[in-house]
Amino acid sequence: MTARDPRSDFDVPAELAFDEAAATALLVDFIRRETRKADCGRAVVGLSGGVDSAVAATLAVRALGGGNVLCALLPYRASSPDSLRDARRMVRLLAARSVRVTITPMIDAYFGRRGTASALRRGNKMARERMAVLYDLSASERGLVLGTSNKTELLLGYGTIHGDLACGLNPLGDLYKTQVRRLAIHLGVPRSIAFKVATADLWPGQTDETEIGASYDVLDRLLHLLVDRRATQEEAIARGFARPLVRRIVGRVRASQFKRRMPLIAKVAPRTVGVDFLYPRDWGR
Amino acid sequence: MTARDPRSDFDVPAELAFDEAAATALLVDFIRRETRKADCGRAVVGLSGGVDSAVAATLAVRALGGGNVLCALLPYRASSPDSLRDARRMVRLLAARSVRVTITPMIDAYFGRRGTASALRRGNKMARERMAVLYDLSASERGLVLGTSNKTELLLGYGTIHGDLACGLNPLGDLYKTQVRRLAIHLGVPRSIAFKVATADLWPGQTDETEIGASYDVLDRLLHLLVDRRATQEEAIARGFARPLVRRIVGRVRASQFKRRMPLIAKVAPRTVGVDFLYPRDWGR
Repeated sequence: MTARDPRSDFDVPAELAFDEAAATALLVDFIRRETRKADCGRAVVGLSGGVDSAVAATLAVRALGGGNVLCALLPYRASSPDSLRDARRMVRLLAARSVRVTITPMIDAYFGRRGTASALRRGNKMARERMAVLYDLSASERGLVLGTSNKTELLLGYGTIHGDLACGLNPLGDLYKTQVRRLAIHLGVPRSIAFKVATADLWPGQTDETEIGASYDVLDRLLHLLVDRRATQEEAIARGFARPLVRRIVGRVRASQFKRRMPLIAKVAPRTVGVDFLYPRDWGR
Repeated sequence: MTARDPRSDFDVPAELAFDEAAATALLVDFIRRETRKADCGRAVVGLSGGVDSAVAATLAVRALGGGNVLCALLPYRASSPDSLRDARRMVRLLAARSVRVTITPMIDAYFGRRGTASALRRGNKMARERMAVLYDLSASERGLVLGTSNKTELLLGYGTIHGDLACGLNPLGDLYKTQVRRLAIHLGVPRSIAFKVATADLWPGQTDETEIGASYDVLDRLLHLLVDRRATQEEAIARGFARPLVRRIVGRVRASQFKRRMPLIAKVAPRTVGVDFLYPRDWGR
């Protein structure tokens, strides 16, 4: 498994190599430009202690300055203490502003009477509580909520809709997980954070790679081949990816389409939101 | 104001007249087809006591049967008792299943220490709490969350992103508010619900028309002209709409674009989620 051996992890798969300095410049500019467009110039980021949010926060601080970035630490009582420690470490390194809101009271108020809820339901509720807190901070701060979902997660639908997938702006959504790690090293994120075992930290012992059933190294190479290189499933199999894995991953991408699009609206009129009324900024001048 | 005089309200503006029977057939089929596609055949609807959710629930019951529709009553302690009464009345009329989850403990757990939060922030947090409860019920029920936002609200951005605007499927999104009222009468929704003063019921005394600053009758005719008929602002003004109103409404539609689209992702790779990777169901066969 990639995440356990930092040395083998340092290099992204050859086909996923990219120019980290150019990507950094592009993403910093993206954050600066889009926050200005939204008339705010500030950002709010939920820091989990993991590499994705560490990279998003670092890019935001480079774009807007530490004084304009609010890092939100949103632990639940069962969250790993290591996660909070790493999140705090990032706040110190970035000299950003921070706030801690424990989501335990809200979550326990809901599930108190519902002791039978599955770990998945509890995890999704927590992700949505964190979203609601981030958006509330966004209102009080007048800052955009920065997304931290990477391309691997978005394509696999490995995230909670209206939870961690929700944001105003996502600087990481076109970078695979192994590329985010590479960018983290380039940006000076501590190696222990850049290469830690990826987990949603929604229940003890959860790890992304166990849940998805493949290492990020394999997932990223396969998704890159299918999505960016437009290979067919048979071509991917011919290149050495196991047939059942290819089938399963393609199935996941298809089944999670609903997480990557707006809700379906029944069309009954000449012009419909999300169907043929899409670009109001270009309209009505 | 339209909502205060049921008689004048019964007729939608002439240009918004539509075939209610045909629309009902189309929307019932839409709900039936799309829930089947999602392999569930069930729906979850948050009933507020207002006309939009009453119509959405009625269409769902016609499509799936009362036993397959769960109506969720999600009051806050400051919610109007009339709202809850009307929601209960709809549940009885529809012979649908229902559940009541009071959101007071979760909301008060959050704002307890934050006494200074504005009514708007509190209202948005409540809308997102209701969303999270609906999605949790969706998981335990294996049913799709049905949206209740109408076209007027969607175009004006009069709703909470990742709150009441969030859903799996929206049967009302292409009907203006006055058209929803008309459809309600056609479907047998009680007139007192069909024509009640529209309010998000997030704080006492709140009404849509006071907040937006125009009656739904005027708003719907203006939006229909600009959006469905593709009129320019000058053409709308020539037809008798006040210039400041036209300017303000066009401004609202533009400024709320972010609520009608997926978050912006910075493009760095050949194929990007939400930009040029859009239709995974058609892909990889």
